[in-house]
Formats: sequence, C-alpha cells, structure tokens
Amino acid sequence: MELVAAVDVGGTKTAAALVGRDGALVARLETATPASLGSTAILDTVAGLVGRLAAAEGGTVGAVGVGTAGVVDADGVVVGATDALNGWVGTDVRAGLQARMEVPVTVVNDVHAHGLGEATYGVGRGHRRVLTVAVGTGIGGAVVDDGVLDRGRHGAAGHVGHLPCPQAETLACSCGATGHLEAFASGPALAREHARRTGGTAGDLRAVAAAAAAGDTTAGDLLADGGHAVGEALAGLVNVLDPDVVVVGGGVASIGGTWWAALTRAAAAGVLPLLRDVPVLRSEIGATAALLGAAALVRTNAKEVAAWTR
Amino acid sequence: MELVAAVDVGGTKTAAALVGRDGALVARLETATPASLGSTAILDTVAGLVGRLAAAEGGTVGAVGVGTAGVVDADGVVVGATDALNGWVGTDVRAGLQARMEVPVTVVNDVHAHGLGEATYGVGRGHRRVLTVAVGTGIGGAVVDDGVLDRGRHGAAGHVGHLPCPQAETLACSCGATGHLEAFASGPALAREHARRTGGTAGDLRAVAAAAAAGDTTAGDLLADGGHAVGEALAGLVNVLDPDVVVVGGGVASIGGTWWAALTRAAAAGVLPLLRDVPVLRSEIGATAALLGAAALVRTNAKEVAAWTR
Repeated sequence: MELVAAVDVGGTKTAAALVGRDGALVARLETATPASLGSTAILDTVAGLVGRLAAAEGGTVGAVGVGTAGVVDADGVVVGATDALNGWVGTDVRAGLQARMEVPVTVVNDVHAHGLGEATYGVGRGHRRVLTVAVGTGIGGAVVDDGVLDRGRHGAAGHVGHLPCPQAETLACSCGATGHLEAFASGPALAREHARRTGGTAGDLRAVAAAAAAGDTTAGDLLADGGHAVGEALAGLVNVLDPDVVVVGGGVASIGGTWWAALTRAAAAGVLPLLRDVPVLRSEIGATAALLGAAALVRTNAKEVAAWTR
Repeated sequence: MELVAAVDVGGTKTAAALVGRDGALVARLETATPASLGSTAILDTVAGLVGRLAAAEGGTVGAVGVGTAGVVDADGVVVGATDALNGWVGTDVRAGLQARMEVPVTVVNDVHAHGLGEATYGVGRGHRRVLTVAVGTGIGGAVVDDGVLDRGRHGAAGHVGHLPCPQAETLACSCGATGHLEAFASGPALAREHARRTGGTAGDLRAVAAAAAAGDTTAGDLLADGGHAVGEALAGLVNVLDPDVVVVGGGVASIGGTWWAALTRAAAAGVLPLLRDVPVLRSEIGATAALLGAAALVRTNAKEVAAWTR
C-alpha cells in the first residue's frame, strides 16, 4: 500500500499522520519539536516520525506534504520565521526531507496548510474561493481558489494579523510595527489586555473565558472586543478578496459564544451590501486542519505536485 | 485596419479611445454620460462614441473593452452600483454593446480596468503581481497576476476603501457601514474633515492642497493624516496580498508631496520585514489608466477573450 504522509511542524510540537483520500487520519504520531537544536534536528525528527508511521502500517510513503511555521517560498525554503525554531530561516525543507526520505516532498506555511485543509476537507469544501482565518497565538490566513493555494509572490500572502486595527492603535505587534490586529486580538494579546483592564497579571485566555461564562462582565466585554476586532477585519477582507466563504479557526475560535457572536455581528456590519450573503463559518476540523491541508497539498494541488519534478 | 477600442464609463463622463498595441491612444473622444436617462441611453452613447472613432480613422473596430462604474460580474452584467448611473444595476453591458456594435465586447469595473492599465502599460509593467489602489471620489483597488485580473467571486474584489480604518471609527461610509477607510481618506471625505477642523464648509480638496502648499499647517496636517490612513491600509494589504509592486493612482494621488510622503512613511512602517522591499509607486499614466486597462483587457487577457466565444 502506498501512503500519503502529512506533517505539521510547530514551534512546540511536530505531528505527522497518514491520511486517506477521504481526509481520514489513518494513523497519527506527535513529538516535541527540537526547536532549540536547529534545522538538522527538526528535519531528522520529521523524517523519523514519517518512517515510524509507514513502518507501523507496513507500507511505503509515496509522497509527503508539510506545513511548517515560517514563511515558505515556492521552492520549499523557509525565508522568514520567528525565533521559535532556531536556525529555521534559510532551511531548504523540501530538499532536506527529500534527501532523508527519497520521496517527493512539498512544503507550505502552516497557516497556508490550515487553509488548504479547510477548503478541501473542512466547512469550506465545495466552495470555489475559500478565505480561512486562524486566530490563536498569532492571526493568519489563507486564500484557496479552486483547490489552489495563493502563496503570494514571496510565500507571505495571508498575514491578516498585520492589518490595521482601530483597537490596536498604540499596541506593538510581534512584527515590529504598531497598530496591527494581532497586537490586540490574538490569544496572548487578549490575555494581556484582560490583565491591563483588571490590574492583574496575564494568564491563559481560557481562564478569562471561564470567568466570562461565570458572569464576569469585564471578561465578557474583553472577549466581545476581541471578536469584534476580528470581525471588522474579516469584513474588510471580504470586501477586498470577494470570497465564496470565510472559515474561522484557531484556538481562540473555540473560546466561547461571546467571542463568536461579536465576530459575526461585526463582520455582518462591515461587509458591502452585495457581499452580505458570504457565509462566515466556524472550523469543524480544528487542530487537524493543517495536517489535512498538508495531505491535500499532495493529493489535489496540481501546481505543487508539478513543482516536485523540477 | 482593424482597431481595438477602449471605453471608460463614469458617473459624469464617458470616454472612448482607439489604442495601439504599445498603449498609445490613437484617437480619443469624450462626452457627458447620460446618467439620469437609464441604461439604454448609456449603451447608445458608448456605441456612438466607438462608431465615431472608427469612422474617423477609416477602419473597423475588431473588439471593444469597457471599464464601467459598478460591480460587473463575469458575464459583463452590472450587479451592483451607486445611484450615479440610473438603472445601471442589472444591465447586461456586454450583450447590449455586442448587439449594437456586432463585435466582441468585454466588460469590467472601472477600477479593475485601472489596475489592468497600470499592470500592462503603467509603472506596474514587468511585475507579476500588481496591486493598484486608486484614491479619488472613492477608494478602490485591483490585483492583476501575470496580466490576469482578479475579479473575485462576485466581481467585487478590490474594495480596499472598505477596510477598517482607525481614523474613520465614527464616520459613516458610502456603503452604509461605519469605520471604513473611504469614509476618512477619499477626496470628498478629506474635504469634509478639513471643514470640520476649521469650522468652514467643505470645498474642493485642491483648495486645501493649495493652502497646505502656502504654509497652512491645518491643511498640511489634514493631507498628512489622509496619506497616513491610506499608507497604513496599503501596508496591511501588502501583508495580506504579498504583491510584487503597489501602484497608487486616482485624483488624490496627485494632490501633493505632503500626502505622498505621509503615505509612503506609513506604508513602510506597517509592512512585515520580509516585504519591506515591495515598491510603492505613484501612477504615471493617471486618468488614462482605465482606458488603457480596457484596451489591455482586449489585447492581453486570454481568459476574458475566451469568454467572448461562449
């Protein structure tokens, strides 16, 4: 049996799975990313996970799709990344993994993989232009047109967390600029804002959500403000990108009804009349979206597959 | 001689030209758009202009490209518009003009035509992904990839004036929403803001620019604030769309150095480090961009041409 393997390389964990043509995860393994040890250790870890999966299923892996933290160019080279993965910038992930596994490998940014997963196997399935936005530690997005990912010219398309945001006007963003959406509405940013409003110390956003659910209006207002900011940005993106559907995922998307209600209200208020019917849907495949997207990259993205043979 | 005609249908004026393969305007005519008389009168006007141009050159027109106010779908039907053109929504511009002129006609939104013009004959020429933003009575934009316009799914892509804008938080936008870029940074909006700041009545933005050039700091600050708002939005768009180049056109783009300096400063401050090299250029073809883009649509856009034969 020839299998397709999907890999999701994150700042803390690396997951790998064998994925069926229907999007079913046949087998899945996860391990800590050796983030501080450099790119050789990370690539070895990926190849090791895939090898163990294949051996356990008694088959060979015919192709590997990878979603990874960092900006990835069309050749599978990491051209930008945070410090989370030591030495990751400049790594030729495709060549490094092909040398280790001797099969075709295709590589994209993890948020791009997430978007491909939503468009292929998630609630975006069946729509032609799918805008996915993931709200978590950061805020990112992807546009998939008829199954084809829009990487942009440098592999950097979809940095929706770096749009101007009225609520972030005085806040420093992770990218070095001021006033970006991510600086106000990411999970850690909302936790910081809650600490600022209450005079406490920033904790986990889930604790804030629990407080909101228990009737704490400060916590509830905070979640509403976060959802509102994302919804405003989504409306702007719909007005610019004119998609068929918007899918919202990431850890913050499951933080509770207050956040979601504020998001959908702001999105509806901000879109052009002609685009009011564009549905804004919550992800149903959640944390597996990036793995599924990495598999979709192998199975459905003809442009990517063609790139293997260069 | 077989000629290509280009038409630009605006709320007040309709222009038509014969355009050479090199982007030269061989001949040009302009007349008032019979905006209040309905779509039949407007289509008659377009066909009349093209017929006069062809007759004057002693040739026949082989194909016509049209850029028009309003959102235009893939079939050349107007699916959305302001009240500027009476009865324009629902008009099948392609069929109406093909019936009158018996040649293939292709139709896009006028800002989309503007973007095609910049990408084909303007400072965007030679770049693969060109983001054009036009700042005038409204604020709109277009993305052209390898010569192919991104219309979006409903023909509405590129409504960049309807992104959230911190300076517009309390301002009503022409679309009915609140807080959009266009509500603060369009030409008429800046003139209104100047009147608000000075306690005067809103006049023409050129008078404000003249005052700024003469040393009026209130006027100068206003132009800087307008440029800053557009520059912030442009940075966000670069972060989302990852283009090769940004072209800024429209009437406000020629309002003076204060506006432009503030725009480029804000754009540079807001883009991701990886995208700092993306050039932000001022249009050099100005008001002819939409006509040139309508011609480019005929000459270079294979997808559009294929649509004629359906």
